[in-house]
Parts: sequence; C-alpha cells; structure tokens
Amino acid sequence: MKYPGQPMTPEFDLIAKYFTRPVTRAVLGVGDDCALIRVVDGCELAISTDTLVSGTHFFPDADAFKLGHKALAVNLSDLAAMGAAPRYVTLALTLPAVDDAWLAAFSRGFFKLADETGIELIGGDTTRGPLSMTLTVFGEVPAGKALRRDGARAGDDIWVSGSLGGAALALKHLQGALTLEPVFLERALERLNLPVPRNALGGALVAVAHSAIDISDGLVADLGHICERSRLAAVVEWPSVPLSPALLPVGPVFRLPCALAGGDDYELCFTASENERMAIDVIAATTGVALTRIGKMQAGDSQVTVRDKDGVPMNIPVAGFDQFLA
Amino acid sequence: MKYPGQPMTPEFDLIAKYFTRPVTRAVLGVGDDCALIRVVDGCELAISTDTLVSGTHFFPDADAFKLGHKALAVNLSDLAAMGAAPRYVTLALTLPAVDDAWLAAFSRGFFKLADETGIELIGGDTTRGPLSMTLTVFGEVPAGKALRRDGARAGDDIWVSGSLGGAALALKHLQGALTLEPVFLERALERLNLPVPRNALGGALVAVAHSAIDISDGLVADLGHICERSRLAAVVEWPSVPLSPALLPVGPVFRLPCALAGGDDYELCFTASENERMAIDVIAATTGVALTRIGKMQAGDSQVTVRDKDGVPMNIPVAGFDQFLA
Repeated sequence: MKYPGQPMTPEFDLIAKYFTRPVTRAVLGVGDDCALIRVVDGCELAISTDTLVSGTHFFPDADAFKLGHKALAVNLSDLAAMGAAPRYVTLALTLPAVDDAWLAAFSRGFFKLADETGIELIGGDTTRGPLSMTLTVFGEVPAGKALRRDGARAGDDIWVSGSLGGAALALKHLQGALTLEPVFLERALERLNLPVPRNALGGALVAVAHSAIDISDGLVADLGHICERSRLAAVVEWPSVPLSPALLPVGPVFRLPCALAGGDDYELCFTASENERMAIDVIAATTGVALTRIGKMQAGDSQVTVRDKDGVPMNIPVAGFDQFLA
Repeated sequence: MKYPGQPMTPEFDLIAKYFTRPVTRAVLGVGDDCALIRVVDGCELAISTDTLVSGTHFFPDADAFKLGHKALAVNLSDLAAMGAAPRYVTLALTLPAVDDAWLAAFSRGFFKLADETGIELIGGDTTRGPLSMTLTVFGEVPAGKALRRDGARAGDDIWVSGSLGGAALALKHLQGALTLEPVFLERALERLNLPVPRNALGGALVAVAHSAIDISDGLVADLGHICERSRLAAVVEWPSVPLSPALLPVGPVFRLPCALAGGDDYELCFTASENERMAIDVIAATTGVALTRIGKMQAGDSQVTVRDKDGVPMNIPVAGFDQFLA
C-alpha cells in the first residue's frame, strides 16, 4: 500500500490555506523544519516575542480581523521602539477548533498590516488548545544603533508620540466603569483594537534619540524602565502630556490613570538631547506623527515624578497593567 | 509622589528570578523591547517555532523539569534537521498562576539542555492563561548549505538516526492501550519525556546529506514531506527500520504503527548519495549516534512505500499525529 506524501490533515490544510504565501525577502519561508534568512551586512537583528491570550489580553469574542491586526501591531511596536525596520514574523496560533470564518478574518487582519509595514511571514505553528497566539518579529537595525532603554542621558528631553489614554479609556467603557459618547467611543475603541505601530518613526529616531520604549504598560511604568536601565530620574510635566481627544470630556478620576498608567496605546516614549529639537520637529513633519516634549531626564534615583501645572508632584494611583494581579 | 522605576510585579519578578541570565553571544538579551543579535558573516539564520499546549502535547500533570527539557528539545530538533548550529532561543510562557516550584523545575530542565547544547535565552514573554509554551529557536548554518526537504535526489539512500517507536509506545502505555514491563517502560518513557535532539549529527550532515527532516509526526508522514517537496517517491524496507528496544516484546499490532507512524521520536531522517556511505559511517562513529540505511529515493509520485521482508508493500493503518483530529 502507498501513503500520501503529504497527509492533508487539518493542520496542514489550514497552514496552506491561510498562512502560506511566497516569500520575497527570506531565503526560505513556511514549509520546512526552519525558515532561513540572511541579515543585511552591517546590521543587527532585533527580535521580540509577544503572546496574546484570550480572556487576558482580549475578550473571547474579539473580532478576528482586528485581533489579527493587533497581534501583529503590538509586536511591530517592539521593533519600532528599537528603531529596527520590520522584516520577518513567525506566528504560533493555538485554536480550540478549526473555524474557517475566524481564520479567514484573522489572516486578513494580519496580512493587511503585514503588507502595509513590509513584514514577511516566514513560519509558525498551528496547535489545538485554548485560543492564544505568540508572534516573534524580526527587524534589521544598523549595528550599534538600536534604541535601547539604557541609553538616556541626564538633560535629555523626554518625548512621546501621538496621544495617550485612548485605549485604556475604551477598556474602561467596555468594562462598564463609565459610558462614553459614541463619537468619543469610536475613536477610543480604534486605539484599543487597531493600534498603529510607530515603525517609520522608530526608524527615523535611530539618528537622534538616546533611548526609547513603546508604551504598552502605561507612560509612568514604561518611562520607569528607561529610568531604571539608564540609572536616571524622569520628571514629567502633566500639562504637557498629549491626551487622547476621547479623554477631554471625562473627569480627572479617569483622565489621569488612563493617560499616565493606561496600557495598550503603543506610542513611543523616547529621550534625546535638547540639540535635537529641530531635527525631531522635522521627523514629526515627515512621518506625520505628532511628537510632544513632556519632561526631562535628570540625575537621580531611577524614579518617575509627574508634576501638576504648579510644579507639585502628583499622586497617580494606578500601576501598570499586571495580568497576574488581574 | 514618586513611582518606582521598575514596578516589581509578579511578571517582572518571575522573569528576573527564573529566566534572566547574562548573555555571552548575543548583543543584548532579556530586558529591552527586543533582543539584538549579530549573525556570523557567511551564515544564514535558521528559525523555527513550536508550541506545546497542556492537554494536547503533554499531560496537565507533566513533570515540570522534563517539560522544560522537552519544550526546548523539540525546537532544537528542527535546527538539527536543517543542520544549523543552535545559537539563541526565545521563550513565551503562558501560566494559569505563578507557581514557584513549577517555574524552578521548568527553568532547571530548560537551562540544563540549553547549556548542554550551547543555546542562549535572549528574550520571551510571560502571560497569564491556560498552560502552554511557544519557543522560537535560532541557528546558524553556512549560506546555501542548510538541509532542506526539497533537496533529495533519485538514487539517494534513506537513513534514520537512533531507533524509532519508543516514544509512541510509551504514550500507548500511558493511555492504557497496553502494559509495558518496567524495564522497557523506563526506556520508552525516557524517549517520550526526555528526547535527545540530534544537533551534533545535523551539523555534521551538512557536508554529506541532500535533504533531512526530524521525525516528529512519524517516519512515513515525515519522509512523505521530503517526497512531496523533492517530487520523488521513497521505498522503505521494513526489516531495515531500527526499532526501539522497547518495541521488541510487543506484537506487530503495536510495533508497526509505533515505528512507522508514531510521533515524538525526534530522530533525523535524511537522504544522501550512495557515495557518502563511508563518510556517514564515520559521522555515526564520531557523533555516537547509530545511523541506519532503510531504503531508497526514486522517481515517482511523491509517496512512501514500506515493503516487508518479501518485498511486498505493507499496509500501515495509522497516519501521523494530528492534534485537530485527536
């Protein structure tokens, strides 16, 4: 008796149907024991992995298209924070069952953003179990030029991209903590569900920034990582922090924690010398991303201080997202 | 008020406690938005991702030390199959809760094998949810020399390393399909729980083999992938297939499916010219891994035929492991 060369089991079926596309940059893509890539001469490879788990990072009934977008976006954001150009991605998808409609929508959301950012799917795994996905992304950055958390210097300006707090506010609405007007809800939900990774910005910042991080756990927590790694203190001026428009109609009881401790915005926070202000304004203009100076790095004890309009340190009651305390 | 620079939440705690070790080869390891690596000049980077899910790939009460070993071993096996030298690994771990004893044992099993094979943990993610783990491994292989599935040639010998069927037999025992004597059970369980990836062998085969794959889904299914990719047929002589010693006392009703369609052995199957037989014998001697010729590649229709001692094609009733049919 003979056996088929490739048993078309559901696992192989669905990889072939939804996730196999010819590679253009990689040496070898999906379909062997490993993918093969070459790294451009003079570049380092930046690598990051993030897992999204149903019930922890997204609602079990989350829209599959948006989830495909977001799973890739949060990983791309890590490349942006290092200033690395997106190149390759692997996708490990765990599914309770084969659901064609879900897979079709998920892969559309995933590939739409992949095509927009020029990142290529080169491999992965499809397994059966509770819904979750782990992506590993690969970016190229000129050797020695990556934007690290430990590069901030005393006297650096602190900058953030875009606006903060929209994603956290949308989550509070979904959790029933408040009710947003439709016009504000729509914008806030878009920040939560379809975050835009700042890859063009990150790439441009390689030439001017001393350190960078993406804001996934909240401004204070993430800027705190720069402080800790760079052994410096940060002072943030609250009136300078760019707020999501959705935050404008809500009171300070929501505005402060959403803007300062809300996760999921995926904006970049970076530090740079005062001498680079004009260059950074040019980068804002060319990338179309608003960039706002919010404070200064200074010698001190690796802590973040947020000051109100009178210069008085404020009390921000909420720590960064911690899934193990949720 | 001031905020701590690094909020020592449980997630950060456990990464620091169990999974942060200084890197020696990587440019930058755990603790930034991305890890950074440099690839040796003239080498390609081989990349593979595998997920293990509780209840699908291991029993929920699986020993954590062995699981740490196995999760890394199955990924290392993919590097071995390409002939790539193990270099780096990322670990995305999803846990229902922080369990110090479990994490300590898991990380010991993981790092023991990592140290033995010279692979370095450079990053990862720790998330809350149903127990699973996704590893991504990185290996270096001289450009153009990786052992791919599509390189087999008509007339090639087909080889396998070690012995087959032990892991599948242990699984049948654990599932209650049969009862093994303790002396055989112990060996079979070791194959299932502590598989030895064939990385030294894979690296040596780069110089002589035309194609290779690791046997994770069963010999017939995995050799079938080489057939399909290389557009050739394979003929395997059943009397030549090296059986796990644990298979000797059991009847053919278990012996055949375990040896030919049983997953989880993580031996290598490869093809090479007849001219390389002496070189392959030398590789067997120097790596200490038994290598057995089991058949030939030939022109044909991408199928695997297994012949009995009289040359008659056999009927193997079990397809490779398919978790979505389980």
